[in-house]
Amino acid sequence: MSTVTGHNFIAGRRSAAGTTFLQSLDATTGEALPYHFYQATAEEVDLAAQAADEAFASFRQLSPERRAEFLDAVADEIDQLGDDFVALVCRETALPAGRIQGERGRTSGQMRLFAKVLRRGDFLGARIDLPLPDRKPLPRVDLRQYRIGVGPIAVFGASNFPLAFSTAGGDTAAAFAAGCPVVFKAHSGHMATADQVGCAIIRAAEKTGMPKGVFNMIFGAGVGEPLVKHPAIQAVGFTGSLHGGNALSKMAAEREQPIPVFAEMSSINPVILLPQALAARAASIAKDLAASVTLGGGQFCTNPGLVIGVRSPEFSGFVQQLTQHMSEQAPHTLLNAGGLRNYAKGVEHLINHVGISHLAGHEQSGTQAQPQLFKADVSLLLNKDPLLQEEVFGPATLIIEVADDAQLKDALLALRGQLTATLIGEPGDLQHYQWLVPILEQKVGRILVNGYPTGVEVCDAMVHGGPYPATSDARGTSVGSLAIDRFLRPVCYQNYPDALLPAALQNSNPLGLQRLVNGEWSARVID
Amino acid sequence: MSTVTGHNFIAGRRSAAGTTFLQSLDATTGEALPYHFYQATAEEVDLAAQAADEAFASFRQLSPERRAEFLDAVADEIDQLGDDFVALVCRETALPAGRIQGERGRTSGQMRLFAKVLRRGDFLGARIDLPLPDRKPLPRVDLRQYRIGVGPIAVFGASNFPLAFSTAGGDTAAAFAAGCPVVFKAHSGHMATADQVGCAIIRAAEKTGMPKGVFNMIFGAGVGEPLVKHPAIQAVGFTGSLHGGNALSKMAAEREQPIPVFAEMSSINPVILLPQALAARAASIAKDLAASVTLGGGQFCTNPGLVIGVRSPEFSGFVQQLTQHMSEQAPHTLLNAGGLRNYAKGVEHLINHVGISHLAGHEQSGTQAQPQLFKADVSLLLNKDPLLQEEVFGPATLIIEVADDAQLKDALLALRGQLTATLIGEPGDLQHYQWLVPILEQKVGRILVNGYPTGVEVCDAMVHGGPYPATSDARGTSVGSLAIDRFLRPVCYQNYPDALLPAALQNSNPLGLQRLVNGEWSARVID
Repeated sequence: MSTVTGHNFIAGRRSAAGTTFLQSLDATTGEALPYHFYQATAEEVDLAAQAADEAFASFRQLSPERRAEFLDAVADEIDQLGDDFVALVCRETALPAGRIQGERGRTSGQMRLFAKVLRRGDFLGARIDLPLPDRKPLPRVDLRQYRIGVGPIAVFGASNFPLAFSTAGGDTAAAFAAGCPVVFKAHSGHMATADQVGCAIIRAAEKTGMPKGVFNMIFGAGVGEPLVKHPAIQAVGFTGSLHGGNALSKMAAEREQPIPVFAEMSSINPVILLPQALAARAASIAKDLAASVTLGGGQFCTNPGLVIGVRSPEFSGFVQQLTQHMSEQAPHTLLNAGGLRNYAKGVEHLINHVGISHLAGHEQSGTQAQPQLFKADVSLLLNKDPLLQEEVFGPATLIIEVADDAQLKDALLALRGQLTATLIGEPGDLQHYQWLVPILEQKVGRILVNGYPTGVEVCDAMVHGGPYPATSDARGTSVGSLAIDRFLRPVCYQNYPDALLPAALQNSNPLGLQRLVNGEWSARVID
Repeated sequence: MSTVTGHNFIAGRRSAAGTTFLQSLDATTGEALPYHFYQATAEEVDLAAQAADEAFASFRQLSPERRAEFLDAVADEIDQLGDDFVALVCRETALPAGRIQGERGRTSGQMRLFAKVLRRGDFLGARIDLPLPDRKPLPRVDLRQYRIGVGPIAVFGASNFPLAFSTAGGDTAAAFAAGCPVVFKAHSGHMATADQVGCAIIRAAEKTGMPKGVFNMIFGAGVGEPLVKHPAIQAVGFTGSLHGGNALSKMAAEREQPIPVFAEMSSINPVILLPQALAARAASIAKDLAASVTLGGGQFCTNPGLVIGVRSPEFSGFVQQLTQHMSEQAPHTLLNAGGLRNYAKGVEHLINHVGISHLAGHEQSGTQAQPQLFKADVSLLLNKDPLLQEEVFGPATLIIEVADDAQLKDALLALRGQLTATLIGEPGDLQHYQWLVPILEQKVGRILVNGYPTGVEVCDAMVHGGPYPATSDARGTSVGSLAIDRFLRPVCYQNYPDALLPAALQNSNPLGLQRLVNGEWSARVID
């Protein structure tokens, strides 16, 4: 493991100009770890953004293959972070070693997926309309389009995935793939982890000859605002709270030059239990659902926070079984003391709400989060009670019983935007409740059948996004290869000499791309 | 021609609940035309947005082929708008009949291009990751993704293209193609034209059995704000001024649910004259440039408003010739009195600026716009004087002489975002000045060589967009088939029964799409 110096990462060097220090804490005991971090000064924030801007000109013009080599090298460096690194992450986050080992593989796998996207080349979106000199009334000129990176990206990682959604996480990988340098705001909950991952990225950048400034990282409270407001920054990636995401979106919209923000924020991920499934397998659903709600202390963006079923003896039986399972779940140490405070507050609000009854869970006190189960009157959802729609980040969930299918429809229509919705059903259920799907499509980014939303596969088809307030822009995803689209913009070349065109658009098709030529996709060479 | 009733278009009916009237004017004489229009009431705005929302559920689920039939039918109806219609448009806009006939063909052609996009199916972005049940440590589930419309779109058309960027213009066509109903805010400069085109769309919608509410249109001043703030509206398309676009972006960002705005706003479209071209053909460049600046009264978003050259005897000679040509250009009747007022004000600001000299043009007075040529000191550009960067909408342009290549580079770096940049050069120039291109790529949406930016081809490869303030979001285009992307969002299906999947994602590939299956593009059927 490298020494954790706690210096900021600027243009390939370490910088420690400030005099304000931050401390990394042991998430389980709350004691200070022997590392301190230099809060970036205003000048350091500026230098980091400038370094990214200077790197952009050359980084974006590297061939896709060269950027793929960089991503592969980052993946290799991450894989080589050893047991001492895993132990460090565990101390900072209270997550178990097995989870961190898995997340390390997920993080390097994510880098390699984007390397594959770069080599496939479809992200370039090459389109060619050849000239039609004889067209009447006017000839058509030669027009060619492909996509380039938007510019330096500010990335704010999440507390709950210290590797996969953090320093070298999905947003960073997507930005690099798009040719965009990154200024990363290190998460206060795992700064030593961030320091180590930052070093891994820098080693990879040096080994593969990337421009200095391709990756920069700043530590500190309050450094996010000047970063987002810096004129060099052209887009923002964020994973965190609704409050935080909204604040960043507001800052970005109020800039002299407004920029897009891709914030993944708040979702309660409804699970809809259909009647035949309840009749057939209520016991196993109750067991699996309790496990999904409490998995990793419930600290997932896709944690199922709302369980909906139609009133029936089977649903009542299921609720009893789920109550039993939830009351038997062990408490969890959360990622940090702030998270525990927020969880306790959220649970207290639910307990004190007149329309909500508490079904299971030990009193919330001490240093761990107690799993909790609630039941709410459907009227709260129908009347869009904000309390019901807000994510309580931790091992808690809430049951809603609807009177019939008509009320089920109304309840789903009353939901705000979500990352996921899940249907638990037998084949007959799915056939009968087909009418739910168009409603869910308009509410969520991903619809699951007979699974739980907490597993988010990193692949081409994944959507980890959805209508507001799940994200700030439903047109993006922050997991999976489509995430690169957020950081690309099209450029068109008109009547351009072939030799001076970018390789993606040259007649000889040197990258071997599938291109849209005169309205038809092909890999053909143009004579 | 249908009767121009001036009633609002709501859910396939006409509605005239209000008591405030607007009048259509003859753009040449200023006299009132015999049509008056009912300003939409607050309730009518609400009903129009609701109608779009109700239509969305069924419209977005129509097969691409069904929506293509609708677009083709709109195209046919537009083509059938006859000479009396052309005469009406000419009266409202002072544009010549030949131009309107051409624009009619461009508008129907645009609809047919999107019909082709629908039949090609690539806009669906189908991606399939098949299950890997034996994968270690965890199996992969079946994941499939495609794109659906974001929801009802509010569209604000432009004054300067009463057909192609208006009621049935590019934004409307792209929204329809994406499966999104439209609420169109009729432009006050050509309300009778809008009424006729609205009727054409409704005829097409009825003939092809589209849901009522697929197209709605409201008349009036001040009706845009409640429209953009209406919760049913999910995105905004706009073509117009920087001031107007910024105001809409602000409203959209401040909604309870923020929504994206695609505003095409302000661009001065720099033309860079390279030395060998000036040496070889200064006379023809001066003639062509004067024609391009004054084409259509200079009322194009892509009108060349800035001409840059390196100091030399050839450049001085060119400036003399351009001055001569500009002084010989005839005055133009603009689209409306407001446009003439703004033009006169812009010209006055330039005349009164100490760093700017007036080279050619008659005194601006009367009812027509006088073509004007100015020369500005390069320091104004280097110091980012806002006056120099702001579009003067009309037949005016501004010359800047730079001392050398280093200053040329600084001048281009000082530019704000633009729709286009143009290089006029001989082959040797283009080779020598290759270093300009990466700078321009970061500043503009389209780079032209040896042409003029005023022709914007409607095709797959066009980009009519660019960094702020050219548009509010550089990731979009408002001309060409890529415009559909602005109104689409991805949805993912996990572990879904094949029969219940959307056709685009079913194993048998009934739409015959190219799909990204396990990381490879193919049209294959899945066993």
